[in-house]
Amino acid sequence: MKRYTKDGDISYSLGVFPTIELLQKRPQDVLIVVLHSKGEKNSGVAKIKDLCKKHRIPCEVKDRDIRMFAYKENTYAIGIFKKYETEIDKTQNHVVLVGLRNMGNLGTIMRTMVAFGVLDVAIIRPSADIFDPKVISSAMGAFFQVRFNYYDSLSQYIESLSFSGVGKAVDKPAKRQLYTFVVDGVTDIREMKFEEPFSLVFGSESAGLTQTDAKLGKKVSIPQFGDVDSLNLSIAVGIGLYSATALK
Amino acid sequence: MKRYTKDGDISYSLGVFPTIELLQKRPQDVLIVVLHSKGEKNSGVAKIKDLCKKHRIPCEVKDRDIRMFAYKENTYAIGIFKKYETEIDKTQNHVVLVGLRNMGNLGTIMRTMVAFGVLDVAIIRPSADIFDPKVISSAMGAFFQVRFNYYDSLSQYIESLSFSGVGKAVDKPAKRQLYTFVVDGVTDIREMKFEEPFSLVFGSESAGLTQTDAKLGKKVSIPQFGDVDSLNLSIAVGIGLYSATALK
Repeated sequence: MKRYTKDGDISYSLGVFPTIELLQKRPQDVLIVVLHSKGEKNSGVAKIKDLCKKHRIPCEVKDRDIRMFAYKENTYAIGIFKKYETEIDKTQNHVVLVGLRNMGNLGTIMRTMVAFGVLDVAIIRPSADIFDPKVISSAMGAFFQVRFNYYDSLSQYIESLSFSGVGKAVDKPAKRQLYTFVVDGVTDIREMKFEEPFSLVFGSESAGLTQTDAKLGKKVSIPQFGDVDSLNLSIAVGIGLYSATALK
Repeated sequence: MKRYTKDGDISYSLGVFPTIELLQKRPQDVLIVVLHSKGEKNSGVAKIKDLCKKHRIPCEVKDRDIRMFAYKENTYAIGIFKKYETEIDKTQNHVVLVGLRNMGNLGTIMRTMVAFGVLDVAIIRPSADIFDPKVISSAMGAFFQVRFNYYDSLSQYIESLSFSGVGKAVDKPAKRQLYTFVVDGVTDIREMKFEEPFSLVFGSESAGLTQTDAKLGKKVSIPQFGDVDSLNLSIAVGIGLYSATALK
């Protein structure tokens, strides 16, 4: 086992619950599962062993490897898997994250997305590395359910929605509404009528969306009563998802 | 400077923004402010120097102290202050956190509370230590605006609302509605009519509220679409605060 690197081909699920999700959702990408001897009586570990057997994935007890790679004590399982590519579903609702930097925020956002039934995220560079084990840990089991694509700019993302690929016939997906979250938007989120399929677009933790990016969608704000700088990004996304999915 | 301890008398604000908030909201409790020489041209550091001068608080450049105590690089200021006691306002809206353990969650919740104009938090033991520097960092500047009290149980908190103190005349505050957040509540949060003053009651990250505690209020749920275990606690509190303050 080697330390995680952004440019490497593999990543890790740390802990029993994320490793079960990995084995259930992406068994074809799992190289090996490492267990800690302390987890012998854990029911989740038993489930991991069953899943490894079913999918013929090697599964070994290696306490030293666990100790080297786990952030937390009492980590009983680590799944080592090949990084994979996904394709966001252009007919579904999206979350779009422009310039997000915090890995914990990215993971928490993915967890919240799944809770509200939104399974597609577009990530606009520069961004946190989605395969960093910290993202996977923060996302809990949700990580392996979410489809994602990277883009170099918000415009590139918008263009990609209109064309299925270079040289292919135009395959136009449903008309989509972009909602750009800003501190002083034209519309209060409580007044906004969200239409599906939607793209909820959020800027970076430190700077938010640029004015240019904000203008590419309907501007919407979450009003704040206190004199705090702004809501934490993952909380803002949570409230955005909660509001946009309210009509279901 | 000594390492932070739960039982000690002092704590730290790490970073320029929280230190400014500390100096503005609790100048009487600040013992000393330590600066890093790299922050010499930072406008926030200039503001810190002005505030220290105004309140006659010692302010020294000590790079080594900063390096020892800061979690992040580029920390230009640390404020060292005496831990203080506060009294929650029994006429105002409250957040009540039962058995919360994660310090980042506690800080993020305080930040979100201030954003939605709720400034009082009741903390039911066992709980994360509110004065841990990690809580103060996660709360950004909001920490020093929030009033808090610790209680041994949810019942003790409820009893405290009816009496101003042993031996004193009964000084009954306004009738208050408790809303207990559970996974399978009687009422969907989208249908709930929140009445003020309210107490929004949340259980621990791992186990939620006990049935006994849940029954002490009106049960309310945030419906989830996916098969994620549950929303992150700080996201649930964010949506709760957003919904409960919607009528303002």
